[in-house]
Amino acid sequence: MHPDHLSATFAALADPTRRAILARLALGETSVKEIAAPFAMTPPAVTKHLKVLEHAGLITRGREAQWRPCRLAPKPLREVAEWVEHYRRHWEQRFDRLESYLREVQSQEKKHVRKKP
Amino acid sequence: MHPDHLSATFAALADPTRRAILARLALGETSVKEIAAPFAMTPPAVTKHLKVLEHAGLITRGREAQWRPCRLAPKPLREVAEWVEHYRRHWEQRFDRLESYLREVQSQEKKHVRKKP
Repeated sequence: MHPDHLSATFAALADPTRRAILARLALGETSVKEIAAPFAMTPPAVTKHLKVLEHAGLITRGREAQWRPCRLAPKPLREVAEWVEHYRRHWEQRFDRLESYLREVQSQEKKHVRKKP
Repeated sequence: MHPDHLSATFAALADPTRRAILARLALGETSVKEIAAPFAMTPPAVTKHLKVLEHAGLITRGREAQWRPCRLAPKPLREVAEWVEHYRRHWEQRFDRLESYLREVQSQEKKHVRKKP
């Protein structure tokens, strides 16, 4: 395992093809050939991406000689979720502030409407 | 904004120094000089990291000429949280399976203990 595995995970996720491969594997284990099909990529090109994902611990590969099925290994994704969770209050605070601002505007408008007639 | 901004976000997060800068900014806005201090890095080296974070939309920089304070911009982190959330059932299923396995083992052991005397 990489000594800074969170960096290895983020680097592996910084590619739309690799994220699409993970999305495919979330549906179930499959072969390199089947993974390659929707991308119009050669199996060697896919294998390169799989190696990055495997290095980051995001997938495991079966030992079966003939088709070596790929499987999603979700542990690094749990670590990403835990890491990003520390920042939740920052994006939620933003919405809270926006919400309270909108409420204020609405209540001001109501007062304004009441005053008018 | 980058056309594939999730990739830009993940690439920006794939560095322990940049994640440490975000952790610092989560405490409040501050100057480049203050960010640089704990890392024993020169301000230009920090500026390089800040540019990557800014490009990914993870920070914003003030317009004040003298110290251009850096602020955390949490929106891309919310997108990471939303993205990783799709995989939650995968890591939770694993724990569910482990838990049900441990329960089975425990109940087998209890039966075994009951039979013994």
